[in-house]
Amino acid sequence: MTNEEAKRQFQAIFGEAGEQVLQRIESYSPRLVGHIYDYIAGNLYQDKSLDLRTRELCVISCLAAQGGLNEQLAVHVRTALRGGVKNEEIVSAIEAVGTYAGIPRALNALFTAIQIFEERNQ
Amino acid sequence: MTNEEAKRQFQAIFGEAGEQVLQRIESYSPRLVGHIYDYIAGNLYQDKSLDLRTRELCVISCLAAQGGLNEQLAVHVRTALRGGVKNEEIVSAIEAVGTYAGIPRALNALFTAIQIFEERNQ
Amino acid sequence: MTNEEAKRQFQAIFGEAGEQVLQRIESYSPRLVGHIYDYIAGNLYQDKSLDLRTRELCVISCLAAQGGLNEQLAVHVRTALRGGVKNEEIVSAIEAVGTYAGIPRALNALFTAIQIFEERNQ
Amino acid sequence: MTNEEAKRQFQAIFGEAGEQVLQRIESYSPRLVGHIYDYIAGNLYQDKSLDLRTRELCVISCLAAQGGLNEQLAVHVRTALRGGVKNEEIVSAIEAVGTYAGIPRALNALFTAIQIFEERNQ
Amino acid sequence: MTNEEAKRQFQAIFGEAGEQVLQRIESYSPRLVGHIYDYIAGNLYQDKSLDLRTRELCVISCLAAQGGLNEQLAVHVRTALRGGVKNEEIVSAIEAVGTYAGIPRALNALFTAIQIFEERNQ
Amino acid sequence: MTNEEAKRQFQAIFGEAGEQVLQRIESYSPRLVGHIYDYIAGNLYQDKSLDLRTRELCVISCLAAQGGLNEQLAVHVRTALRGGVKNEEIVSAIEAVGTYAGIPRALNALFTAIQIFEERNQ
Repeated sequence: MTNEEAKRQFQAIFGEAGEQVLQRIESYSPRLVGHIYDYIAGNLYQDKSLDLRTRELCVISCLAAQGGLNEQLAVHVRTALRGGVKNEEIVSAIEAVGTYAGIPRALNALFTAIQIFEERNQ
Repeated sequence: MTNEEAKRQFQAIFGEAGEQVLQRIESYSPRLVGHIYDYIAGNLYQDKSLDLRTRELCVISCLAAQGGLNEQLAVHVRTALRGGVKNEEIVSAIEAVGTYAGIPRALNALFTAIQIFEERNQ
Repeated sequence: MTNEEAKRQFQAIFGEAGEQVLQRIESYSPRLVGHIYDYIAGNLYQDKSLDLRTRELCVISCLAAQGGLNEQLAVHVRTALRGGVKNEEIVSAIEAVGTYAGIPRALNALFTAIQIFEERNQ
Repeated sequence: MTNEEAKRQFQAIFGEAGEQVLQRIESYSPRLVGHIYDYIAGNLYQDKSLDLRTRELCVISCLAAQGGLNEQLAVHVRTALRGGVKNEEIVSAIEAVGTYAGIPRALNALFTAIQIFEERNQ
Repeated sequence: MTNEEAKRQFQAIFGEAGEQVLQRIESYSPRLVGHIYDYIAGNLYQDKSLDLRTRELCVISCLAAQGGLNEQLAVHVRTALRGGVKNEEIVSAIEAVGTYAGIPRALNALFTAIQIFEERNQ
Repeated sequence: MTNEEAKRQFQAIFGEAGEQVLQRIESYSPRLVGHIYDYIAGNLYQDKSLDLRTRELCVISCLAAQGGLNEQLAVHVRTALRGGVKNEEIVSAIEAVGTYAGIPRALNALFTAIQIFEERNQ
């Protein structure tokens, strides 16, 4: 996949919210931005062992477990919802984070997810 | 669900490896063991918003991201495989952990997963 | 303990600040809210092996060590103070977090605690 | 407090298990060993805002929450028990870690604590 | 080194941004403030095994890897820049954090660093 | 850089210890192994904004701060030493981790580093 194709893949997967994250760092860290386009969008997300819905629920679990990553979590919640994941599937994955990484991490992830659910409802 | 039913659910979901973890703590922390039977097996895992396969891939992501939880990760890798998850789906979820929580966490999770894949191959 | 009693226990222990946290997630994650009422308030906090003051200092240590959990830390600092824990006991527990989890985690926890100390002084 | 007094305080507080940890690093990192004697034993632990029993339960919570610190956790469980903390108080603090930092972190801390409880019973 | 000299060292190393952090906690936790002056500024930073530039890049890596420490990260980015570290050296260290602690931790650290780069450019 | 060149770069940088890590996962996760060759060895480590010595001290700080990554830490300590970093520089970076991520994380990293220092002395 060429760099241009990878960039288009990135935009198709992560939309405007993802793109805005990269624009903030592009001129300072072209290496990291290039890596995100080429490896994440152009390679990792092209792996069809997991469908997009399962992948996004896994990434949401991974981000919520670590804590302090609300902005990135928001990008993946939006990507999941655009890909057809239902609110209650995201909630269920985060409830499991409560058990396996502590209730406070789950609460913070829910606050982020619910804010996005409600924006979309308006 | 009665406590006895929750205990049987636990055994059905997590098998012998899960049971052995709880036996090591049962006489010292009946509260935590009771909580694991009643809430995790009897409530969280009864939520059908996520099927068992998706749930286990999410929990594997959550554990791998935190690090230092190889024993618990092994229980969930075994549960996933017994539930029909394929090796390459687990590998794909862990590869995403490499991106979202660092390559070293992914390597450690892969070491644990691969050891279980190979035991089952023998 | 019935669900209603557990809910009253929760309100008695964590007060208005705790209640507000749960109201934000209640309609999306009744499972997690129910778990917090029934298990945390109705079971964990009923265990008298630790008195409330010691328990809250332990929970404050646990939250401060992980980082990124200021909102939950604030709830437990308020609960501790309402239960008669003195400012200097909380400061002393957080100073230990500086040694055992790094000075930056301790600084962040102190910022949160001091803000609450000062609100109560006014 | 002189360095020699701080060293004696350290030995009085943490015993042989603590001393062995420092002997492994002494010739390579005299700065860190000196810091542990002078600041931890000679200053932090001299602060009487928290009694030793409460302090150790807080430190156990702080270490258990972070994970991957079994050796240091063992030193503090031994210190707590020598200082008169009861097994069930340690278990209760770790059960709270299960809620506030995830069940897997609590399980690992319990494994470490129970091993020490059982050694002392023999 | 006397306490007064250590305090002057601290101000010389960390400047106004560092001093403001300590002023917020000084009256509540003189122990921690004293420790930061005496040990960090008066001892750790006097160790010439690492020059200031290398040390700050290491501390930036350590803070960025843990996450949720933006305020402390900002202090060390400013200290690094005042000490002659170039923007691209800080970016390169943070890019490595992306590989070894996950892309999201690196993105958050870059957001903090870039904001400081841009303030200084104005 | 071709894949073959990146692989040779990897071997030149990380030596036998690094190679052994990848051999354990190669047949299960060719994507992650390819990524490590191409991106880490072939791109990240080719960035000359940081020289190898500074880079390795930063990566050691990043790994030590997270905890539970002893095997990966060992690879980077060996790489640093082969590249001319002195024992006391590594010790100094880890002492800073004690301040910025907690003494226990620093102790564990020192145990790993000292074991390697001593193997090389024999």
